[in-house]
Amino acid sequence: MRDDRDDRDDAESEAGGGWRVTADDIQLIARGAGVLGSGGGGDPYLGQLLAVTAARDGHHGVIVPLDSLDDDDVVMAIGQMGTATVFAERLARGHEAVLAIAAVERHLGTQAAALVCYEIGGLNSVLTLAAAAARGLPVVDADLMGRAFPELQMTTLDSGGAPSAPVAVCDDRGNVTIIAASEDMAWTERLARALLSAMGGLAYIARPVTRAADLKRLAIGGSYSRAHAIGAALRRAQADGTPVEMALAAEGARLALRGTISVVERRAMGRTMRGSATIQTHGRAGALSSIDFQNEYLIVRQGSETLATVPDTICVIDEETGMVVDTGAVQGGLRVIVLVLPADRKLTTPAALRLVGPGAFGYETSYQEWSGTERSR
Amino acid sequence: MRDDRDDRDDAESEAGGGWRVTADDIQLIARGAGVLGSGGGGDPYLGQLLAVTAARDGHHGVIVPLDSLDDDDVVMAIGQMGTATVFAERLARGHEAVLAIAAVERHLGTQAAALVCYEIGGLNSVLTLAAAAARGLPVVDADLMGRAFPELQMTTLDSGGAPSAPVAVCDDRGNVTIIAASEDMAWTERLARALLSAMGGLAYIARPVTRAADLKRLAIGGSYSRAHAIGAALRRAQADGTPVEMALAAEGARLALRGTISVVERRAMGRTMRGSATIQTHGRAGALSSIDFQNEYLIVRQGSETLATVPDTICVIDEETGMVVDTGAVQGGLRVIVLVLPADRKLTTPAALRLVGPGAFGYETSYQEWSGTERSR
Repeated sequence: MRDDRDDRDDAESEAGGGWRVTADDIQLIARGAGVLGSGGGGDPYLGQLLAVTAARDGHHGVIVPLDSLDDDDVVMAIGQMGTATVFAERLARGHEAVLAIAAVERHLGTQAAALVCYEIGGLNSVLTLAAAAARGLPVVDADLMGRAFPELQMTTLDSGGAPSAPVAVCDDRGNVTIIAASEDMAWTERLARALLSAMGGLAYIARPVTRAADLKRLAIGGSYSRAHAIGAALRRAQADGTPVEMALAAEGARLALRGTISVVERRAMGRTMRGSATIQTHGRAGALSSIDFQNEYLIVRQGSETLATVPDTICVIDEETGMVVDTGAVQGGLRVIVLVLPADRKLTTPAALRLVGPGAFGYETSYQEWSGTERSR
Repeated sequence: MRDDRDDRDDAESEAGGGWRVTADDIQLIARGAGVLGSGGGGDPYLGQLLAVTAARDGHHGVIVPLDSLDDDDVVMAIGQMGTATVFAERLARGHEAVLAIAAVERHLGTQAAALVCYEIGGLNSVLTLAAAAARGLPVVDADLMGRAFPELQMTTLDSGGAPSAPVAVCDDRGNVTIIAASEDMAWTERLARALLSAMGGLAYIARPVTRAADLKRLAIGGSYSRAHAIGAALRRAQADGTPVEMALAAEGARLALRGTISVVERRAMGRTMRGSATIQTHGRAGALSSIDFQNEYLIVRQGSETLATVPDTICVIDEETGMVVDTGAVQGGLRVIVLVLPADRKLTTPAALRLVGPGAFGYETSYQEWSGTERSR
């Protein structure tokens, strides 16, 4: 929602009213997207390689504001589904999402005017830029999640009642499938998840918003600007020796916990991995804290007190390296800080909380804005 | 391939050059399709109910010969995938296959001129008639398997090199998916199977043959006529007290075994059930015989001798009732005869045997035409 582009090289990055994304911008966006991943969303680094390579070959992504779209434009939301480890083994060649876009375009008999990132958190932020460069389409400065979530129906499009089909699901072998109609978006997710599994755990999706007017109303705006600003703040903090919690205070980040991870438990629940990390907080003898996760961090507790819950973004940072620790890498012995970034207001409406609030992940706790006493400054 | 319509009521059944299928015809076709199921393909009885109800409401299927199609006609192959027990619980309302047809028509931007049955063996024979009546389209007197097989790529279209996409996969909730491109038909099968599983074990497919000229060249002709002739022969035999093996001799059936089933073993292999039935043959002390199955009966052995293999149709009949015993119902204590009906020649080419021969089911045995010594007459 903020539009802090102080770190952009304006001379190089402005192109036809849009923001022409440089290789350096991509690195900052990827870094910020790591924070917005809330511990999930896949490692942006691999996607960053693709986007940076494209940019160095002269194929730059161009980011345009939501309000630059005509109301009748068709915008394609794209993203990758699957497991980070599989992605690392089967690195995208960049054309996979383009296949999915083409499948939907053919299905609808219309052309996309722009792309929008399905989820700004993690890998998909930069993959969308790579696909946009490959296809020669602008990317809207917006996304559908404002962070990362594990399932396709967890978007502000869906809390706003957008259609649940069509969605194209493709893989890197050239298999192309289209969910042409579905009972609801949870069914689209179920069908896409089955296809993903048959495709070996890695797939690319495209989902149209057939009127940009709906996207303007429903999407979370300013997502790339925000990721870029977070990435730039982290880079400055690293150069200055500023603590991360202070560097991100301007982004609304508040320090929830500081401590050492003692135990991490993980368990498979159906097709998803859930788990919990126990944290021994510093300076509070006996105050055992914990963070639960399912792909992303979901809930932070201190004793019986709930400090933060999904859909707020919960970010675990390694105090020694200043790097984000995702839910796959969290392990005993790490000294960490836990930051909470407040959710976009579109994620905290009653309709949105049904899709992305604690209840959607099986918790009885209701969502509450963070109300801890420790502040970053 | 035969065209023995002696039992049809010609006055009532001829309509505009096609064969207007009566409720009685449907019952005979279903009975013959049970034999052609080779122990699988689903119980035709449930599909028969649908087709008969439609016929009694005035919605008759009309069967037309392959050569009545224009070479440029689009013909839609349709069928149901899934488990017989799920089908019994979630009886089709008749519109599900129509959804799949409409999805492919929309995808291709063209209309189907006729339907063709994906597999004549078992349930799909009569389901196709019900869908044709619901949609007001003729059904070609042909199919793609000549019997029943467990996987989508096991057709004469595929041994003939037909495209592996598009294929629509729908369910009775209104979920509609399209496999728009695939690496090969084994991938189409894999993706469709994943969708089937997500859909709860019951799905309906449509696959276009965009030029009827290809269908004329590749399909197995006369399938409905053959099923009808087999059904009529069984009915006559039941009325006359003629042994089944004699009644079906005119269809090329030969008696492979007569005996009592002693033991049946079943084991899950991945998503499929495989098994083997041991038969104590009469009058041959010590001669233990067996039939292996995976959805359908695959191979008949007597001691170390192979009596018959897939793609020949292997039919087990309960001697007491004269009824077909499918692989789900075969059990110890049943007195049975085992009949072998020779495969259509389009199933025994080298290309077809790669898809439907013993090797496709994991056997090292090569296909051989039946060469036993017992004959039905």
